Amino acid sequence: MNAAPRSTPSPTPGTTLTFTTERQLDDGVLERRFTLGDAPGIPGILWTPATATPSAPAPLILLGSPGGLGLDRMYPRLVGRARHAAVDGIATVALEGPGSGDRPPLPGADQARADLRSALSAGEPVPDEVVDRLVLPLVDQAVPEWQAALDALLALPEIGGPVGVSGGVIAVGVRLAVVEPRLVAAGLFAGSYVPRATVEEARRVTIPVHVLLQWDDEGNDRQAALDLFDAFGSAEKTLQANLGGHTGVPAFAGDDAARFFARHLR
Amino acid sequence: MNAAPRSTPSPTPGTTLTFTTERQLDDGVLERRFTLGDAPGIPGILWTPATATPSAPAPLILLGSPGGLGLDRMYPRLVGRARHAAVDGIATVALEGPGSGDRPPLPGADQARADLRSALSAGEPVPDEVVDRLVLPLVDQAVPEWQAALDALLALPEIGGPVGVSGGVIAVGVRLAVVEPRLVAAGLFAGSYVPRATVEEARRVTIPVHVLLQWDDEGNDRQAALDLFDAFGSAEKTLQANLGGHTGVPAFAGDDAARFFARHLR
Repeated sequence: MNAAPRSTPSPTPGTTLTFTTERQLDDGVLERRFTLGDAPGIPGILWTPATATPSAPAPLILLGSPGGLGLDRMYPRLVGRARHAAVDGIATVALEGPGSGDRPPLPGADQARADLRSALSAGEPVPDEVVDRLVLPLVDQAVPEWQAALDALLALPEIGGPVGVSGGVIAVGVRLAVVEPRLVAAGLFAGSYVPRATVEEARRVTIPVHVLLQWDDEGNDRQAALDLFDAFGSAEKTLQANLGGHTGVPAFAGDDAARFFARHLR
Repeated sequence: MNAAPRSTPSPTPGTTLTFTTERQLDDGVLERRFTLGDAPGIPGILWTPATATPSAPAPLILLGSPGGLGLDRMYPRLVGRARHAAVDGIATVALEGPGSGDRPPLPGADQARADLRSALSAGEPVPDEVVDRLVLPLVDQAVPEWQAALDALLALPEIGGPVGVSGGVIAVGVRLAVVEPRLVAAGLFAGSYVPRATVEEARRVTIPVHVLLQWDDEGNDRQAALDLFDAFGSAEKTLQANLGGHTGVPAFAGDDAARFFARHLR
């Protein structure tokens, strides 16, 4: 069922969240699509468990997406994670990333991807400066967008926090964990390139982190992931490495990550 | 309450399990001390959940002990793990290790320990051959003892398998996983020295493994643990690394390990 668009003013000037559609999933989860900010705005999806009410507002997990894959392609995996979190009484939100879906490409992204492919097809290590050009502009744009989304979402009566971030481009999660004081837990997927600057930023992270690593991830540097894990300054940090490639995360690893969030957000 | 000693003949000649004491813990778990083999025999403790009966025999976890620490010193931690497993309907058993408690020292063990201390106090890496002398004689003796215990325990009507091994000296767990076909899952603690031969043996392990690593374990070589994990030939293998020193395994890591066993033994 489609609801009439509804706008919620947010405490951050210029950050308006406008619901465009809503439907109830069979497990009682409410799925609402929205756009954030002025037209055309940034598309997003908010899932709230049936238990989320103004008198018992829900915690929230920001669901990151891999860079470049749009919300539509990611939807099946995102809604699965949303349903899983809803069982624990936790709301979830996904946002179309910069350069993803119908959003305009990030400046320099095409060139950075071409340089990445050249290095990979030549069988050479990917130069640090290519990783920087590939990832850092995305981080710089995605993080304030997530913060604006948080401003708007925490103003909803049924969303109360605390807030966690789960998955997506790991450098985005690390930056968010450093700059966003409303974040209390980060579940990260070590499945994307790690700029050197991100390892340095990780030393300033103090919230609990749970890092998933696929041990045989084809396009991922295992040592870089271990170095990043080593760098986190958090008093509670867990690395869970599982056999398999990038898309082979076993179901029990998803369960363990869900328990990590339930422990810190409930 | 103490029960009269009772002997159970086992299918392996010469391996007799004699119960010496029994008491019921407050959660209904039955704790029985026993000796294995001819007098004086090897002391051990068997814990069975109230749900274990001849018509519904329980799976079994072999609880390893760190080398050198006797059953008495390990008892509080062992009984904690036994109670945890019993909640999942799983029986557990601990055995006094070779050279531990009142058992005679292993030949060469004192010299190997002295050589280890020399290397450590000189701030030098521990030579491979010292690790070999320290660990391999223990493996060679402990593994057949565990197998004899298994023969006797699986002959009990209330114990049915399948069988897992949990913790203890990691080289013992790896050898057991290679040579003992009744073992279906290994939960290992990467907190002891790893002989080079153990890494080679790990390639022949095919049962699911769950490896706990304390990221900042003072007396442990992190890279050796990662190399060992990499070597396992299992189609399901998980490494869980947590912040902290040797004895700082967080409670949630114990819960995750318990779920690993429940998944594979139930």
